[in-house]
Amino acid sequence: MSHPHPELGPPPPLAKDALRVVALGGLGEIGRNMTVFEYNGKLLIVDCGVLFPEEEQPGVDLILPDFDYIRDRLDDIEALVLTHGHEDHIGAVPFLLRERADIPLVGSRLTLALLSAKLGEHRIKPTTVQVEEGERRSFGEFDLEFLSVNHSIPDSLAVAIRTPAGLLLHTGDFKMDQLPLDGRLTDLAGFARLGDEGVDLLLADSTNAEVPGFVTSERDIAPAIDEVFAQSNQRIIVACFASHIHRVQQVLDSAKAHGRKVAFVGRSMVRNMNIARDLGYLTIPGDLLVDVKQLDDLPPGEAVLVSTGSQGEPMSALTRMANRDHQIRIEEGDTVLLASSLIPGNENSVNRVINGLIRWGAKVVHKGNALVHVSGHASAGELMYVHNMVRPRNFMPVHGEWRHMRAHAKIAALAGLDEDRICIAEDGVVVDLHRGRARITGAVPARYVYVDGSSVGDVTESALKDRRILGEEGFISVVVAVDTASGKIVGEPEIHTRGAGIDPDAYDEIVPKLQDSLERAAADGIADPVQLRQLVRRGIGRWVNENYRRRPMIVPVIVEV
Amino acid sequence: MSHPHPELGPPPPLAKDALRVVALGGLGEIGRNMTVFEYNGKLLIVDCGVLFPEEEQPGVDLILPDFDYIRDRLDDIEALVLTHGHEDHIGAVPFLLRERADIPLVGSRLTLALLSAKLGEHRIKPTTVQVEEGERRSFGEFDLEFLSVNHSIPDSLAVAIRTPAGLLLHTGDFKMDQLPLDGRLTDLAGFARLGDEGVDLLLADSTNAEVPGFVTSERDIAPAIDEVFAQSNQRIIVACFASHIHRVQQVLDSAKAHGRKVAFVGRSMVRNMNIARDLGYLTIPGDLLVDVKQLDDLPPGEAVLVSTGSQGEPMSALTRMANRDHQIRIEEGDTVLLASSLIPGNENSVNRVINGLIRWGAKVVHKGNALVHVSGHASAGELMYVHNMVRPRNFMPVHGEWRHMRAHAKIAALAGLDEDRICIAEDGVVVDLHRGRARITGAVPARYVYVDGSSVGDVTESALKDRRILGEEGFISVVVAVDTASGKIVGEPEIHTRGAGIDPDAYDEIVPKLQDSLERAAADGIADPVQLRQLVRRGIGRWVNENYRRRPMIVPVIVEV
Repeated sequence: MSHPHPELGPPPPLAKDALRVVALGGLGEIGRNMTVFEYNGKLLIVDCGVLFPEEEQPGVDLILPDFDYIRDRLDDIEALVLTHGHEDHIGAVPFLLRERADIPLVGSRLTLALLSAKLGEHRIKPTTVQVEEGERRSFGEFDLEFLSVNHSIPDSLAVAIRTPAGLLLHTGDFKMDQLPLDGRLTDLAGFARLGDEGVDLLLADSTNAEVPGFVTSERDIAPAIDEVFAQSNQRIIVACFASHIHRVQQVLDSAKAHGRKVAFVGRSMVRNMNIARDLGYLTIPGDLLVDVKQLDDLPPGEAVLVSTGSQGEPMSALTRMANRDHQIRIEEGDTVLLASSLIPGNENSVNRVINGLIRWGAKVVHKGNALVHVSGHASAGELMYVHNMVRPRNFMPVHGEWRHMRAHAKIAALAGLDEDRICIAEDGVVVDLHRGRARITGAVPARYVYVDGSSVGDVTESALKDRRILGEEGFISVVVAVDTASGKIVGEPEIHTRGAGIDPDAYDEIVPKLQDSLERAAADGIADPVQLRQLVRRGIGRWVNENYRRRPMIVPVIVEV
Repeated sequence: MSHPHPELGPPPPLAKDALRVVALGGLGEIGRNMTVFEYNGKLLIVDCGVLFPEEEQPGVDLILPDFDYIRDRLDDIEALVLTHGHEDHIGAVPFLLRERADIPLVGSRLTLALLSAKLGEHRIKPTTVQVEEGERRSFGEFDLEFLSVNHSIPDSLAVAIRTPAGLLLHTGDFKMDQLPLDGRLTDLAGFARLGDEGVDLLLADSTNAEVPGFVTSERDIAPAIDEVFAQSNQRIIVACFASHIHRVQQVLDSAKAHGRKVAFVGRSMVRNMNIARDLGYLTIPGDLLVDVKQLDDLPPGEAVLVSTGSQGEPMSALTRMANRDHQIRIEEGDTVLLASSLIPGNENSVNRVINGLIRWGAKVVHKGNALVHVSGHASAGELMYVHNMVRPRNFMPVHGEWRHMRAHAKIAALAGLDEDRICIAEDGVVVDLHRGRARITGAVPARYVYVDGSSVGDVTESALKDRRILGEEGFISVVVAVDTASGKIVGEPEIHTRGAGIDPDAYDEIVPKLQDSLERAAADGIADPVQLRQLVRRGIGRWVNENYRRRPMIVPVIVEV
């Protein structure tokens, strides 16, 4: 089993009859999925998503794939295939299109509709190519075939990529619900047919490779949803992902069956459900929908809210309800249904929301106490089917952290693949497919690119390091005025501090000492601002450490007057 | 079911024949457990622990209960009972003893030994009263009886408190392992005897009230631990809590059986295991132990490390191993066993550690993929036993967040208690037991008291708010020198910034504009520093918002020269 080493250098030139695979995101993390395929000087990209920041990236809004690797070759891009409409697969498209606006965007009807709505908000009019399962279509020398896959958003696709270098299958995100609500199965028969043809490299979703067994069918959560409706005679508030159209459909069906009205809350929920209804992916019976303002006129036993905020996002409607900071006031007897997964990293915020809701008397139903969520990603049992049907010559686990990729590699090995035919890559690691063999041949930069506010890339690792220090310790700024002519200190050093948590009076002890040492330095003819800053930094740093055992950021400012 | 309202005022004076219960911590959170009982002007305290901060409290080391409520009445404290030796029950004792050093500390042998070691590090020599299960002992008018309970640390106690106002039972932290490793059962028979006598108020551990069923016995994890040893022929690294003596015992037993040697790593692990061995709570066979330095001389198949760091603490040995920043280098084939719970809030850091270890080729066994941990707190099934045996006249859920306390209240109601006899309190809420009825009668302050470095309470909510802004956005400081005589600006405004993530050159655009507006203000005779600061704050704030859509902290500094 080959895996990258930190010492990987730039890859050699690509052999003429070889295909190169470079993931710029999605390997070693769940998010910012983006894979670049290169053949004969031309590029095909699959997915272009965002990663949501963790506490290690404070203040960051989004993390993008690093486009550096393709920046000089934007005109070589034949197409960008979007496998489905989730943010971690389409969220970075607006940023890529800023660099070249007319990259052909290839995807299914729903995927392109969701993407176009997003691009509309960025005032971008894209070039789109709508495709569907079963279709085969060439972009330059990349001959693509699309296959239906089943996931937590409708209309998802896998893509087979044929070039003279070989046949690749990229599953996209998928599971294998054998009784999907929309009847659209993952095309395992198609996978098998490709396997018969001979798949040279399989790239497959690793998210749930550690989870044994099979994902429960989406329709198996209907009884739990129905029980919530049957047992409640007050308001029901459902929080789930704004893209989970089938989940929302099940809630609408239960609401209808129990004679309730439904209002959608949250910008993306309202937008996506409109799109899904207009395109026929969501069926909304007659007069079921009401505006959120009309809910107040209904008896609580007839009202349902379907809202975003299932991850405890601080500004979401649900979080504000939990804090009694929303027009909807949670009352004793209300039921809140969190019909969603709990994305790792959000445990604390979701727990706070649950506690807040329960504090005000709500009953909270969630995946921890009822079957109200199933995953969108194939478990180990399903992955075994894929490996056994496709029987690829080489395998590369994608869409996963290390733990998921290693577990997926084991599944491939169990299915009989030689370990040296399994390439566990990381973001930026180069895998070349040449004469039927996939090998790691080098690495290219694939840094985190941070979006913060309206700017992309301005926030660097060093700014984040400063933020982490400031966020943990605060800062102490010491402003010293120096007369440039005489080199003398003017007035006394001024302290400006935030977040350091030191009683302001305490500085009365250190300021005269700083002044003394500055005056002594001046008397010794030291006027270099660098040296003076150093003097201040050391003096106050030592004082804080000795008296408080803390390390705030110290910002000495020498003002020359 | 009575529960507190934000509008609760100070409680009325306590009736002569009544008993008052005020939790200063532990209700509405898991941590900083501390409950104050008052009768006839005297106080009894049960537990005095710390709470570990979450991301909402950046840079904070520990959170203490707020001692304000008892600060003027320290001399009225008859005793402080410590139910067991966990940090969330004993961690704040050194801070309370700073206020009155000779408070009698009452606890079991192991609890007092662990506490004394901790106090020794703070150079405090405490006044201790060692007690054991079955013992009855009075402190002033508080007549105490101690009962054995089973928990994830040996020698834990429940305490029954008799005063003329009635009989209380405080369970402490407990579960009801029916085959505990040390044979020491939770004294359910004693609970029943007290129930026969008539328990006026039960206070019981709510941590697992949401979890149906029964906690698996500690001894049931032995096969999983043994399988790790049987399947590994390389190094085994076990991470668990430094206080979980029975868990460590099971690891030592397996190591012995498989012919391996063991080294302890981590200060608290080494300290606690020494104490436990010296007092006979831990049995270490013959030559099993080696020093960590000797491990290198052993074949990897004979080495076991038992380490702290199971929660992904940044500086712990395990985290550093995951980052290849430790003398122990993780190699392909090593096995890491996380034999511990995952404390909510630590999911991200533990996940990072697991990914790091797996990246280097380790196999990681954890509670998600093997039965290597069982909880220390009674599940709903066990709690039903307690309620049915004790049949209290009133009940107050303790040791839990809102979700846990509400779930526990439902269990009490299921067992037949009237809902108006169940008091769900929060920290600071006053519950008075008077003539057989417990009622919420008011609230007292119970703020979070922050320990940061060597200081207690200096870090305020306002400093934390500043830290959160600084940590998310950084700061921009604008230093302007003003000639006091002329009111004129000297030189040009200087920008000092950290963490804002703005290209330094960009400030060239705004500095002249700031200077212009300052000079115009000076020309208009505006020399008041408050007004000048306002001018600067608005000017640069608007510029940052318009150009970057961000809100860094803006710190204008007017230096008068």
